[in-house]
Amino acid sequence: MKNYARLEKQFQRLSRLSHAETFLSWDQQVMMPPGGAEGRAEALAELSGLRHELLTAAMLGDCFEAARSESLSPDQQANLHEMRRHWKQAICLPADLVEARSLAASRCENDWRRQRSENDWDGFLPRFEHLVALVREEAHARLAASEEAKTPYDALLELYAPGESNAFISEVFADLKQQLPPLIQTISDDQKTHPQVSLEGSYDLGAQQQLSRQVMRILGFDFNAGRLDVSTHPFSTGVRGDHRITTRYRGSDFLDALMATVHETGHASYEAGLPAEWSHQPLGQARSMSIHESQSLLFEKQLFLSPSFIQYLTPQLHEAFPALQTHDWRSLWSAMTRVQPDYIRVEADEVTYPMHIVLRYEIESDLINGKIEARDIPDLWNEKMLGYLGLSTEGDFRNGCLQDIHWPSGAFGYFPTYTLGALNAAQLFHAIRRDLPELDECLLSGDTVPLRRWLQTHIWSHGCRLSTPDLMQQATGETTSAAYFLQHIRRRYLNQ
Amino acid sequence: MKNYARLEKQFQRLSRLSHAETFLSWDQQVMMPPGGAEGRAEALAELSGLRHELLTAAMLGDCFEAARSESLSPDQQANLHEMRRHWKQAICLPADLVEARSLAASRCENDWRRQRSENDWDGFLPRFEHLVALVREEAHARLAASEEAKTPYDALLELYAPGESNAFISEVFADLKQQLPPLIQTISDDQKTHPQVSLEGSYDLGAQQQLSRQVMRILGFDFNAGRLDVSTHPFSTGVRGDHRITTRYRGSDFLDALMATVHETGHASYEAGLPAEWSHQPLGQARSMSIHESQSLLFEKQLFLSPSFIQYLTPQLHEAFPALQTHDWRSLWSAMTRVQPDYIRVEADEVTYPMHIVLRYEIESDLINGKIEARDIPDLWNEKMLGYLGLSTEGDFRNGCLQDIHWPSGAFGYFPTYTLGALNAAQLFHAIRRDLPELDECLLSGDTVPLRRWLQTHIWSHGCRLSTPDLMQQATGETTSAAYFLQHIRRRYLNQ
Repeated sequence: MKNYARLEKQFQRLSRLSHAETFLSWDQQVMMPPGGAEGRAEALAELSGLRHELLTAAMLGDCFEAARSESLSPDQQANLHEMRRHWKQAICLPADLVEARSLAASRCENDWRRQRSENDWDGFLPRFEHLVALVREEAHARLAASEEAKTPYDALLELYAPGESNAFISEVFADLKQQLPPLIQTISDDQKTHPQVSLEGSYDLGAQQQLSRQVMRILGFDFNAGRLDVSTHPFSTGVRGDHRITTRYRGSDFLDALMATVHETGHASYEAGLPAEWSHQPLGQARSMSIHESQSLLFEKQLFLSPSFIQYLTPQLHEAFPALQTHDWRSLWSAMTRVQPDYIRVEADEVTYPMHIVLRYEIESDLINGKIEARDIPDLWNEKMLGYLGLSTEGDFRNGCLQDIHWPSGAFGYFPTYTLGALNAAQLFHAIRRDLPELDECLLSGDTVPLRRWLQTHIWSHGCRLSTPDLMQQATGETTSAAYFLQHIRRRYLNQ
Repeated sequence: MKNYARLEKQFQRLSRLSHAETFLSWDQQVMMPPGGAEGRAEALAELSGLRHELLTAAMLGDCFEAARSESLSPDQQANLHEMRRHWKQAICLPADLVEARSLAASRCENDWRRQRSENDWDGFLPRFEHLVALVREEAHARLAASEEAKTPYDALLELYAPGESNAFISEVFADLKQQLPPLIQTISDDQKTHPQVSLEGSYDLGAQQQLSRQVMRILGFDFNAGRLDVSTHPFSTGVRGDHRITTRYRGSDFLDALMATVHETGHASYEAGLPAEWSHQPLGQARSMSIHESQSLLFEKQLFLSPSFIQYLTPQLHEAFPALQTHDWRSLWSAMTRVQPDYIRVEADEVTYPMHIVLRYEIESDLINGKIEARDIPDLWNEKMLGYLGLSTEGDFRNGCLQDIHWPSGAFGYFPTYTLGALNAAQLFHAIRRDLPELDECLLSGDTVPLRRWLQTHIWSHGCRLSTPDLMQQATGETTSAAYFLQHIRRRYLNQ
């Protein structure tokens, strides 16, 4: 196993460089003063260039070839498979395309920040068309090098969600398209018959911060191996032993920061549970973004928003914010589970959110596969928003197709992972309930240990040993399906 | 200038890797939870290894040779000189010596932490003797490769204070040895005749932090290009545009944090004033540790502790800590300038501090030059402490030769830069007074702009264009001398 060993050593170096990039990026978003921006961008570009050099070093190709005939343990074989996947993704693009694409994305994203606020689709379109042309070129190059992708969009999906496909996602999303819009209607109508609870108020930032830390501890976060900080957009990053999550506090709304904290704690818990002995190798990394998002959404939507957990937490909420003492747990819970179709994805509730994603998925996969053009997007957006959520975005690009950073920054193939994550979360939580009949009792007393132990066994400890479909299959008995999510929505919102 | 350009490009890459190491180390000391230690150490070792690879790449030797005959500007020539100096320092040691020395230092330092608290010199000696043998070997290898060093100790000095020498330091320190001990005696005797003011009390940590930031702003620190944080030992680090300093707050003593903040602000101001256009090249770096320390000590001992500045600051101290209102500025100033011979260097006042350094310098240079052995240290320490400060350390290793981290960690040649810095600070402040007759008026109103402008012109903006002696010469009219420091002490403490 001389060649395998050489590959492992090279990927260990890559992992250490990646450690540097991880914490320099964290610092950039959390600590760095404005004056540091230029130097930091240069240092990050240098590291990323060095990593690319190491990953595409000529000797690696021969090592991969030779390592196939070496005698390897099953874990080593799985690691070899993952190393090879990363390597192929790195070598399949010509350097000039990588550079042109990166430049086009920077420019398009940069202009978009202004154009979005000015509702300027016509100004946005030319640079975006140029970016789309280059991303299509990238997708075709990746498709040619891929052993599994069948469409150009498939080849981009492999970057974020290896194991998912255009065809499979369309099939799963078809169920959502069919069943969710009428459900949204029924739920909204039903909620209108109840008095609406508002939690708007004035919430001390220190108390919010303390509550976030308290809830993280309840969820099993180890502050000897991680931190909670503040950033404009909440995120989660880090390495084994040092997991960093962020949130942001608003004086008028304690839920915003708290839910973000819980969401990011889900991400961090997954990372902390990955196989320690493989932490410097591809095998020891998170499986895919659709599994990653399933962990954050399981913590946020399934665990935290379960009536049992809110019931447990209510005395602590009352203590943190005495003004809330006029609300019992039912009243708090009903305020936290309000459903309302609206324009902006990131503010959507769990019931309407998937329709925002179905819309984006349909548009971006047709765009990358060459079935529609960039100029067609606003009309398609309006048409689909009317159909799925009953809202018109005609002429309103700011709250329509210009709202997200993903497309202007060149990230196509990422959107579906949000909703695949939500479906996986519901499906996993269903399996957990099946395996742990005492779950509700545990949550009523704030005991999250059995739930985390289940996730550790069935998801976290596997790293990249199994593909996403196989991982879901062994954990729940079937691959990703919309059925459990739809069942969850019906139960939670319609008592069905 | 093809070869010079290649060298510049390589040093730019090195500078970007060094950026990564800078902020990862900052994070390690300021932010990182304990669980991150192992991964961080590995990542830092990887980066340092990569930097060593880039700096010792075979092609560089030819480039240096060929670049000599290229047509270069004076700045480029100076940069070439500095690049070559760094390169020679990197290539002159055999790899197995570097590794053996690094291992011996880690082990010795690690054991020392326990041995110091247990006053265990006998336990310390064997590993320390092994380390000293390797450091001597290092010094001889560096001496063989050096164009200027005349003694093995000279060759180590070049790492921290290029331009200083064993012979020159001995000459300058001779004046201190002769004049300082009787001065210390006179000042202590004199201070005993005045009532002693104690500032011990209870100081709100939030108010201390606010005061630190306020004083940093007065000293010209730009928070858009830097941060103040907390760490166990105060330090200063960063890059152009992002200067990070730390301090630590104690409830019973506001001066400790404040003086550390001022000291580190001096370091950061020097870094911020280095030539911007050379920030990624050796020419754009700080000249030496003896110049660096002159800037921090100029800010701390000359500027901050000047009666004019304390007079200006007193109302702000009263506002921050109302309990101080019983003290007028004279009373505060006299508490801040108490002189008292004591055992511990880091707690020493500015008058006794140099004798701690003279003692260490004499011992470490004789040790490296082979004139004494490690086992001789405790007796020499005791003898010199008695002679210089009138204190016996017989049998008390903890408060004697085991007190500092420098020797157990293998850092020989660093100690003299503290006192060379103090001498340079006094000499520069004397020149500033000469050039700015309005200086006291400015300090009385908290205006530090003219002083900083002077330092910018005479020190900061030069980077490594001039050697340390030339830099001091052009700024003050002569090279480093003990005269101005001794004059400063006589004026401040004896009104002479």
